[in-house]
Amino acid sequence: MNRAYNHTKNKGLNPNISVDCVIFGFDFEKLNVVTIRRGTGNGSELMRTALPGDLIYDNENLDMAAERVLEELTGLKDVYLEQVGAFGDPNRVRNKKDEKWLKSIREQPEARVVTIAYYSLLPMEKCQLLASSFAKSVQWEAVADIKDLAFDHLEILKTSLDKLKNKLAHQPVGVNLLPEKFTLGQLQKMYETILDKKIDKRNFRRKIQKLDILTLLDEKQTGVPHKPSHYVKFNDKKYRELSETGFDNFGF
Amino acid sequence: MNRAYNHTKNKGLNPNISVDCVIFGFDFEKLNVVTIRRGTGNGSELMRTALPGDLIYDNENLDMAAERVLEELTGLKDVYLEQVGAFGDPNRVRNKKDEKWLKSIREQPEARVVTIAYYSLLPMEKCQLLASSFAKSVQWEAVADIKDLAFDHLEILKTSLDKLKNKLAHQPVGVNLLPEKFTLGQLQKMYETILDKKIDKRNFRRKIQKLDILTLLDEKQTGVPHKPSHYVKFNDKKYRELSETGFDNFGF
Repeated sequence: MNRAYNHTKNKGLNPNISVDCVIFGFDFEKLNVVTIRRGTGNGSELMRTALPGDLIYDNENLDMAAERVLEELTGLKDVYLEQVGAFGDPNRVRNKKDEKWLKSIREQPEARVVTIAYYSLLPMEKCQLLASSFAKSVQWEAVADIKDLAFDHLEILKTSLDKLKNKLAHQPVGVNLLPEKFTLGQLQKMYETILDKKIDKRNFRRKIQKLDILTLLDEKQTGVPHKPSHYVKFNDKKYRELSETGFDNFGF
Repeated sequence: MNRAYNHTKNKGLNPNISVDCVIFGFDFEKLNVVTIRRGTGNGSELMRTALPGDLIYDNENLDMAAERVLEELTGLKDVYLEQVGAFGDPNRVRNKKDEKWLKSIREQPEARVVTIAYYSLLPMEKCQLLASSFAKSVQWEAVADIKDLAFDHLEILKTSLDKLKNKLAHQPVGVNLLPEKFTLGQLQKMYETILDKKIDKRNFRRKIQKLDILTLLDEKQTGVPHKPSHYVKFNDKKYRELSETGFDNFGF
C-alpha cells in the first residue's frame, strides 16, 4: 500500500494538478504583485518567495480551486481570476532550492505537478492581506524588483505580465487598478508602469480622449506640490462596452 | 497494492493530465477539424467521436506531449501547436456515454483528468491522416456539422474556434490554411467560413489591400466556370512582420 498516495486520495487533493495566482496591484508608482513566504525558523529562510498556489481538490473545477487557494493563503476573497494557461515543465518542481518548501507541505513532494495559472488586477488600497494556511507572510512586492521566485513562478509572472500588456493594447484597463477618481497623470503613469516605458503626454491624452471612456469631475487635487489636476473617473457604461468589443492597438 | 496505480506509474503515464488537439483545415468550402473514432465492433459504435488526445508521460512537457499524441493517433508529424488553455471540470470524463471509451484505453478510467488543449491550422491537401494507437479511424469533419463529441470536446472545439476568430481580427491568417497560390475570392471565403458570416466584397478587398501582405501573380485560374481570377500569394516577410506586431481589429 502506497501510504502517501492514499493519504492524498483521502484528503481529496490531486497530487498532480495545482493552481497559481498572479495578483497585480498599482500604487501610483509601481506595478506590484502578491507573494507569499513560509516565514522564519526551521530552515524556512532558505525557501524562496512564491506566488500563492496549491494543489486542487478532485471535486472542484479549476476556477473554483484558484479562488479558494487564493483566499486560503492571502485572505483575498471573491476575486475574479482569468486563466493565463497551463505550465507543465517536468522539472518545474525539481529545483533543489524548492525541496524544503515542497517537503514541508506536500504528501508527495516528488510528484509531477502541472499548474494552471490565473491572474487578476486588484485595487491595492482596498485589499486586506492575511497570511494563513502554509503562507507565513503575504505581501505586495514591486514586480520590477523581483529577480527570483520559487518553482517556475518567475516564468508565470512574466507570461501574466505579457498578457496584461496585451490587454492594455486592446481593452480598457484601470477600473480595478485605480481608485474611483484619479488624474490623467495617474492614468498615464499606470500605462507607463505596465508597459515599462515613457509615453509622450500629448500623444497619450489624444489617444485616451479618442477612447471616450472618461468623465471629467468638477473637483481638483488638493495638497499637491504642483498645479492641482482635475479628477476624472471612468464612464462605466462606455468602459464596459469597449471591454467587450475591444479596440485598435494603442501602439505607444 | 493498487495495481492500476502502479501499472500506470510503471508506464510513466500521468493518470490526471491529458492533452487534446484541435486541428483546423480549410477546403475552400468549409472549416474542418480532425476527429478520431474507436472503430467498429465490441460496442465501439456506441462510443462518441473525439478530438485526438491522451494522457501525458511524466517526463515530457506539455507541448511535446501534444505533438506526440497527435502523431500517435493521426499520423500528423511536427505540427506547431499553440496552447488554448486548461479544461478541468471535475465531471468532464464522467459522462455515461464515454465510460466504454475510457474503460477501453485507461488503467484508471475513474481518475480525475484535467486536459490542456492545443490548436493548429494545417493545409488539408498536404495532410496524410493515418489512424493508429487507439484511434481506429481519423478524418476531417466539417466543424459546422459537429453536434456532439466525447467528454468536453465540444466546449474545447468552441473555445478554440473563438481563439481562431480572435486571431483573424488581429493577425494575418491563411498561410497554413490556403495553398501557396490562391484567389482573393478564396481568401474571402476563408474569412467568411471562419467568422460564419457574409462579408461585403469591396469592403473585404479594401481592408486586405490595407494590410499589404499579398503579391499579385502573373497567372490566372484555368478551367473555372466563371471569369478566371488572378492568383495571389502571401508576401512572407510582410506576413511575418504583421504576425508579430498584430493590427487593428478587422471588424467585419
